[in-house]
Amino acid sequence: MSFIATPQSMYFAEPLALQSGASLRGYTLAYETYGTLNADKSNAVLICHALNASHHVAGHYADEPGNVGWWDNMIGPGKPVDTNRFFVIGVNNIGSCFGSTGPRDANPDAPSDSRRKQYGADFPVVTVEDWVNAQARLLDELGIHQLAAVMGGSLGGMQTLSWTLQYPERVRHAVVIASAPNLSAENIAFNEVARRAIVTDPEFHDGHFYEHGVVPARGLRIARMIGHITYLSDDVMNSKFGRELREAVTHNSTGYKYSTQDIEFQIESYLRYQGDKFSTYFDANTYLLITRALDYFDPAQQFGGDLSRTMAQAKADFLVVSFTTDWRFSPARSREIVKALLDNRRHVSYAEIDAPHGHDAFLLDDPRYLNLVRAYFDNKVAA
Amino acid sequence: MSFIATPQSMYFAEPLALQSGASLRGYTLAYETYGTLNADKSNAVLICHALNASHHVAGHYADEPGNVGWWDNMIGPGKPVDTNRFFVIGVNNIGSCFGSTGPRDANPDAPSDSRRKQYGADFPVVTVEDWVNAQARLLDELGIHQLAAVMGGSLGGMQTLSWTLQYPERVRHAVVIASAPNLSAENIAFNEVARRAIVTDPEFHDGHFYEHGVVPARGLRIARMIGHITYLSDDVMNSKFGRELREAVTHNSTGYKYSTQDIEFQIESYLRYQGDKFSTYFDANTYLLITRALDYFDPAQQFGGDLSRTMAQAKADFLVVSFTTDWRFSPARSREIVKALLDNRRHVSYAEIDAPHGHDAFLLDDPRYLNLVRAYFDNKVAA
Repeated sequence: MSFIATPQSMYFAEPLALQSGASLRGYTLAYETYGTLNADKSNAVLICHALNASHHVAGHYADEPGNVGWWDNMIGPGKPVDTNRFFVIGVNNIGSCFGSTGPRDANPDAPSDSRRKQYGADFPVVTVEDWVNAQARLLDELGIHQLAAVMGGSLGGMQTLSWTLQYPERVRHAVVIASAPNLSAENIAFNEVARRAIVTDPEFHDGHFYEHGVVPARGLRIARMIGHITYLSDDVMNSKFGRELREAVTHNSTGYKYSTQDIEFQIESYLRYQGDKFSTYFDANTYLLITRALDYFDPAQQFGGDLSRTMAQAKADFLVVSFTTDWRFSPARSREIVKALLDNRRHVSYAEIDAPHGHDAFLLDDPRYLNLVRAYFDNKVAA
Repeated sequence: MSFIATPQSMYFAEPLALQSGASLRGYTLAYETYGTLNADKSNAVLICHALNASHHVAGHYADEPGNVGWWDNMIGPGKPVDTNRFFVIGVNNIGSCFGSTGPRDANPDAPSDSRRKQYGADFPVVTVEDWVNAQARLLDELGIHQLAAVMGGSLGGMQTLSWTLQYPERVRHAVVIASAPNLSAENIAFNEVARRAIVTDPEFHDGHFYEHGVVPARGLRIARMIGHITYLSDDVMNSKFGRELREAVTHNSTGYKYSTQDIEFQIESYLRYQGDKFSTYFDANTYLLITRALDYFDPAQQFGGDLSRTMAQAKADFLVVSFTTDWRFSPARSREIVKALLDNRRHVSYAEIDAPHGHDAFLLDDPRYLNLVRAYFDNKVAA
């Protein structure tokens, strides 16, 4: 049984200038903290979330014992990131749909005579850099000048990278897991298909579906199904599902139902279930915003694509972790980061974990992985 | 300039019993032939098509010089499969939408008082085995007892495999390219997402959209975009498109438009174009049927999953070809076929071509690949 977590939120009245040139007039950040900030405020660890996660990183809610944080195996008392030692902060990013200001919230710039009270598709495009700036303001308010560590997987790893470039003096350690210095064309392609599925759903209503009392559930389902395929490896899909039928019929030799629309294989059942579940809680505009933030992230762009010159800005020590069967953010992408750091003689530990689970591995209980992170925090990260 | 091809068709009045237990009352096969059948009818080569191709395999139409067959680089006078020597047959499969009987055709079993005159979603589910049976009848009518070779890539390779198992005495050589003995869970997963995109398009109308005068174009676009991602390798996507923007804006430092819906990257533009084009000509019910035929194909299922026991039925000599960057039907899947053949001491040549183009490579002009097929036909396949 994990500990009790308590969601908090903070309102920021000062506008946030965004990378796009737009700005956000006042915004709220939802966050959680675990453990105790020490007297010199030197033991803070910031956790950055990926596409569909939130500030609820670890523990469970007092009134919802089943609602356990998404990285509860990693963070908590006695866990690899030990909250007996570190003050851990989880924060929901702006544009998301779990408590921080996002497309579902009231748009302060909406004309008073408009039926459109919520942002919807008018929520400004936000980038990884914008998220980091918003997170930095939260740290300012909490009185934390320098983080013992920033840490994240996937898109969370991109925010971690960006922290070391935007605020090099404020990060002692960066833990970048299952991530990449930018998206490949194939990564962007998968995002684009998911976005088109959402945007072309007739119930998307150009991103202003709230006023219509509907949700583009068809599009969200397709988006999530595509996502799930890319989170898993071919190997783990074969071992978990293979060609197993959901319910073989007995009156023919193959056991097939011979139907184009009914569920025939277990993998179909799994994907439909994941898609259905996701479409009931995730916001379609948030999906567009977050996948775009992924697409846009490319810190080396400002240095003509030279990642080594880019990483020269960073002062943190790094732990970089990848997983052999992750084809979404393959080990080769992590090695690009490691090489750029070594080119700058930065301290970097790199581990390529031989795990079968694909991109999902960064959330799972592989003991070699968890022990590695534990050893890094125990031995390298001073509180 | 290639030669002139002439589409033909043949009507079969005798019902075709299908693997599902249903049967098809009379059907038409569209086909083309190139070259001349020799006196003892021993020089016929059958070409099987994959998902979205047709009987128009090579040459161009007299009135449409731009309409060149999909494997024109492989087949024709002086080409690797030389029509000066071989009598080549391309046939469109039943359930498809290019001339053979399919979902767009009149349903002879439709009640006379129904508005639904076309099959639509009532077209029976067809399998690779059914297609091979239909192709065999066409050969009967053409007086061809034994094929010099059957040949196909991807799903066409599955039909080729099936020929050697269903009609072992009728095939001297089998050329199986970029194929697999069955789909993996990941393959099925991609098919399922594409089908869900089509089926949940409100204009699909449960597969009876013809009567409504609409087409589920949104779903077809998504299906095709997903398909295209899986046809290409990550490498070739990066070298062709990378992170290139379609039209960089000049008033900000990143060049991004900062939009969730506009096209930003070249890869997005490419995918949308492919999706749009496909949705104008391909039939949605055909897409469901053909992806299901892919899912169902699993000849080893009848032998408890033992591919070696399965391939013991085959008598043909084999050429098996795979491409290193094909992640849809990876070389490992071709090697399963090769091993099963070797277990049975069959004659098999195997080549793994180091090509960057992914699954698409089987349609492209790689000289090592084309020369390999040429050498096989020149030296092994007697007319």
